[in-house]
Amino acid sequence: MQVAEVDPIRTKRYVEETFRLLQAKPGVEDILIMNHSGVPVKTSMDRQESLQYACLYDNLKEKCQAFLTKMEPAQTLTFLRVRTKYHEVLITPDAKITVLVVQNAKDSFINIKG
Amino acid sequence: MQVAEVDPIRTKRYVEETFRLLQAKPGVEDILIMNHSGVPVKTSMDRQESLQYACLYDNLKEKCQAFLTKMEPAQTLTFLRVRTKYHEVLITPDAKITVLVVQNAKDSFINIKG
Repeated sequence: MQVAEVDPIRTKRYVEETFRLLQAKPGVEDILIMNHSGVPVKTSMDRQESLQYACLYDNLKEKCQAFLTKMEPAQTLTFLRVRTKYHEVLITPDAKITVLVVQNAKDSFINIKG
Repeated sequence: MQVAEVDPIRTKRYVEETFRLLQAKPGVEDILIMNHSGVPVKTSMDRQESLQYACLYDNLKEKCQAFLTKMEPAQTLTFLRVRTKYHEVLITPDAKITVLVVQNAKDSFINIKG
């Protein structure tokens, strides 16, 4: 028997609390929370930057979904981690909101000079 | 002084050894290694599936790069992790080859019935 997936409850208070908890984490540089249509609802960035990020992410999510549908049609994206030398973007979409966090990811063991 | 980034050496033997090491890891379901033009050079999948994956990944990488260039132009993708309920795709591109691993990611703490 397949457990029915109930849509999560995401009140304004939930969004504020998520934002507060994330902001308190060490290394977090930016946070962007979007609603299910991809519109920023809470952000640490300025308005312009938030909209740019939201739009870029929307394309990325679309390509990810196409990529996942190739594997098994039932797959939906639950977590996405994009890593560069200095930053890491963590993206957690669910049925109601998408949380995007940009964190500082300098490897302590890579001795980066200059 | 910025440390010059030397292109890594990726011989056929390096590719074979990487493939062997990954295959021995628990939970690994599929492995695809592509050259810098995105052509599969070593894979556990059949030919058709490898080409499909390689093509889908190419789109995904492009969108990721666009996403990262928004942050700071100097950013290049070093690692990508795409997670669904049952699978996780780990992608490690470098200057010469890209290694793509599909692994089983059933959370032991999520009790999935049916």
